[in-house]
Amino acid sequence: MSIALVIPDRKLDALIEKLNMLLPGVLIQQWPHYTAPDQVQMAVVWKQPQGSLAALSNLKSLQSFGAGVDSIVSDPTLPDLPLSRIVDPALASSMVNYLAGIVLHYQLRLDVFQRQQQKQLWKPKSPRLIKHICVLGLGELGQAAAQYFVQQGYQVSGWSRSIKLLDGIESYAGEEGFIKAVSAADLVICLLPLTPDTNNFLNTERLRAFKAGAILVNVARGAIVDDAALLAALDSGQLQAACLDVFREEPLPAVDPYWQHPAVLVTPHCSAVTNVDTAIHQIVENYQRTLNGLPLMHLVNRERGY
Amino acid sequence: MSIALVIPDRKLDALIEKLNMLLPGVLIQQWPHYTAPDQVQMAVVWKQPQGSLAALSNLKSLQSFGAGVDSIVSDPTLPDLPLSRIVDPALASSMVNYLAGIVLHYQLRLDVFQRQQQKQLWKPKSPRLIKHICVLGLGELGQAAAQYFVQQGYQVSGWSRSIKLLDGIESYAGEEGFIKAVSAADLVICLLPLTPDTNNFLNTERLRAFKAGAILVNVARGAIVDDAALLAALDSGQLQAACLDVFREEPLPAVDPYWQHPAVLVTPHCSAVTNVDTAIHQIVENYQRTLNGLPLMHLVNRERGY
Ligand SMILES: NC(=O)c1ccc[n+]([C@@H]2O[C@H](COP(=O)([O-])OP(=O)(O)OC[C@H]3O[C@@H](n4cnc5c(N)ncnc54)[C@H](OP(=O)(O)O)[C@@H]3O)[C@@H](O)[C@H]2O)c1
Ligand SMILES: NC(=O)c1ccc[n+]([C@@H]2O[C@H](COP(=O)([O-])OP(=O)(O)OC[C@H]3O[C@@H](n4cnc5c(N)ncnc54)[C@H](OP(=O)(O)O)[C@@H]3O)[C@@H](O)[C@H]2O)c1
Repeated sequence: MSIALVIPDRKLDALIEKLNMLLPGVLIQQWPHYTAPDQVQMAVVWKQPQGSLAALSNLKSLQSFGAGVDSIVSDPTLPDLPLSRIVDPALASSMVNYLAGIVLHYQLRLDVFQRQQQKQLWKPKSPRLIKHICVLGLGELGQAAAQYFVQQGYQVSGWSRSIKLLDGIESYAGEEGFIKAVSAADLVICLLPLTPDTNNFLNTERLRAFKAGAILVNVARGAIVDDAALLAALDSGQLQAACLDVFREEPLPAVDPYWQHPAVLVTPHCSAVTNVDTAIHQIVENYQRTLNGLPLMHLVNRERGY
Repeated sequence: MSIALVIPDRKLDALIEKLNMLLPGVLIQQWPHYTAPDQVQMAVVWKQPQGSLAALSNLKSLQSFGAGVDSIVSDPTLPDLPLSRIVDPALASSMVNYLAGIVLHYQLRLDVFQRQQQKQLWKPKSPRLIKHICVLGLGELGQAAAQYFVQQGYQVSGWSRSIKLLDGIESYAGEEGFIKAVSAADLVICLLPLTPDTNNFLNTERLRAFKAGAILVNVARGAIVDDAALLAALDSGQLQAACLDVFREEPLPAVDPYWQHPAVLVTPHCSAVTNVDTAIHQIVENYQRTLNGLPLMHLVNRERGY
C-alpha cells in the first residue's frame, strides 16, 4: 500500500507527516526517489514533470494537490486514470477573503491614495462606487465568491458554461451571455479554469465588452488573459485598474511590464493556497476509495479539462 | 426662524437645499454673510473661526456638523450653550467599511506585496496573522467597529473611560486597563476623541505597551498620537506599520516624514465623512427641539470635551 507524491519544488514535510498519521502502514514515496514504484495505487500530483508517473505500474488514481488542474492535464504522458481536484471550504474562504480585501482596496481608493502618497498629494475623495460585481466561472470558488458579494449587498452577475440557478445572482452562459454578464459590472473577477477554450479568453474584443472604467481581478490563471490586450485596455482607460494574482509565467519575470504599470496591482499567486491541514481529508478519503474501487470525490472531467 | 451655517471651506449647496426642503420658511444664513443674525436659534458649526457666533444674539443651541467636536470646543469664544454631535448609522458604517478594508490590506500583506512590486520581487507568503484587534475608544464609532470585528471572528479588546458590557468584547479602563487592552493585540484602532486628556496620548511609553510588531490604525485625530514617538516605534520595529487617516495638521504638509515612510499608509481624512443625506435628519430634529425648548439629541458633555 503506497501513495506517490509528485509535487516538485515544494516542502512536503507537513503533508508527509499528516499522511503518516492518518494512514499508518501506507508507504509515502516522493518523486524522484521512488523505492517501490509498483506498490503505488494513488499519486498526488502538481505540475508533475513529463514521464514522472511512468514507473508507477499499478497506479489506479490521480489526486491533484490543488483546485486547478491545467498544469496536470497538459502533460501528454498523463495516464488515463480518474483525476480528482481539491475542493475545500478553507480554500474557498481564503479566496473569498482575498477578493473581499481587493474589492475594498479599490472601493476605498487605496490604489489612488497610495499613488498620491508617493507624490505627497492630499486629495480627499469619497469611495469609488463599486455596486455591481461580475464573476466569470461559477464553480466551487466562483460560487463562493458570488454568494459572498450577494450577502454583502452587491449586485452580482455570473458567467459559466451552463446557466446556474443561484439566489440573487444573474447567471449567464454563451458569448452573448458573456456580454450581458460583464457590460454593467464595475469590477469583474476571473475564476475560470484554464482550458483550451479559455486560453487567451479575455482578449481585446471581450475586454471591450466591459463597462468603461471597469476593474479586472484575475485570480484564476494568467494565460486566460491576453496580456497585450489587457495592457492596451489599461492604457486607453477602457479598464481603470487590474489586480493580478496569476500570470502566464510565474514567478513573473522581472522585465514584465505589469510590475511597473501604475494601474496594476501584482500579488504573487497567494489568493488561495492549498492548506494541508484541511485538504488532507479529501486526499485520505480518495485514497481509501481507490483501495476499495469506489469512484473518487470531486472528479475532473478530463474531456472538458476541469 | 433661522439656522446659521458656520462651516468654512466647504460646499454647502446640498445641505442648504435639504434644509430648505425639510424646514420650509426657516431662513438659512451662511457665515460670514448673515442677513438677520438676531433671528438665528441654532448654529450648525464645524471648525468655526473665533468670534463667528458673536453676532447671533438669540442663539439657543449648537449642532456640530461631525462626530468629533475638538475643533469646536477649542474655541474660547464658543457660547456656553447645548452642543450636539452627529450620530448617524451611515457615518458608522462608512468607518467600519474603511477599517474592514484596512485590516484586510494588512492581512493580505498588500503593503508588503506593493513594496515588492516596486522592486519586481516575487515572494509568495501566507496572510499575516491578525487575530486580535484592540479598539481604543468605545463610543459610537468604536463600538460599531468592535462589534463588526467580533462578528468577523476576531478576538476584540476595547478601552474607554468607563468599562462597557458588550457581547464578545473584553472591555478595559484606566492606565492598567490600557496595557491589558493593547498588549496582546495584533492591530490597534484609535477611535478616541481629541480632548485635553488624549492629546499626545499615544506616546513612547504607551506605544511600548503594544505587542511587538503590532499595527496602529489612527482614524480619530492626529494630535492623539505623539508623531515623533510613532516614527521611532516604526523605525525600531516595535510597530510594524501604521495606517493614518488623520494628522495634527491637515492637509498633511508636503515635508512631513509620514508621506515617505515605507511603513506608513496615508489616507486623506476620508474614513468617515458626514453624509448630508442621512445626517440631515438629526439636524432637523435638533432644530425642532431647540424651538420647542426640548433637550437636544446626542449632546456633548462640554466638561469632558466629547
Ligand atoms: N490564484 C489562486 O491561488 C487559485 C487557487 C485555486 C484555484 N485557482 C483557479 O481558479 C479556477 C477556478 O476554480 P474552481 O474550483 O471554481 O473551478 P471549477 O469548480 O472547476 O469551476 C469552473 C467554472 O468555470 C466554468 N467554465 C469552465 N469553462 C468554461 C468556458 N469555456 N466557458 C464558460 N464557463 C466555463 C464552469 O462552468 P460549468 O459550471 O458550467 O461547468 C464552472 O462554473 C481553477 O481552475 C484554478 O485555475 C486559483
Ligand atoms: N477620520 C474620520 O473621518 C472621523 C470621522 C468621525 C469621527 N472621527 C473621530 O472619531 C472620534 C470618536 O468618535 P465617536 O463618535 O465614537 O466618539 P464618542 O461617541 O464620543 O466616544 C468616545 C469614546 O472614547 C472614550 N474616551 C474619551 N476620553 C477618554 C479617555 N480620556 N480615556 C479613555 N477613554 C476615553 C469614551 O469613553 P466613555 O464611553 O467611557 O465615555 C468613549 O468610549 C471622534 O471624536 C472624532 O475625532 C474621525
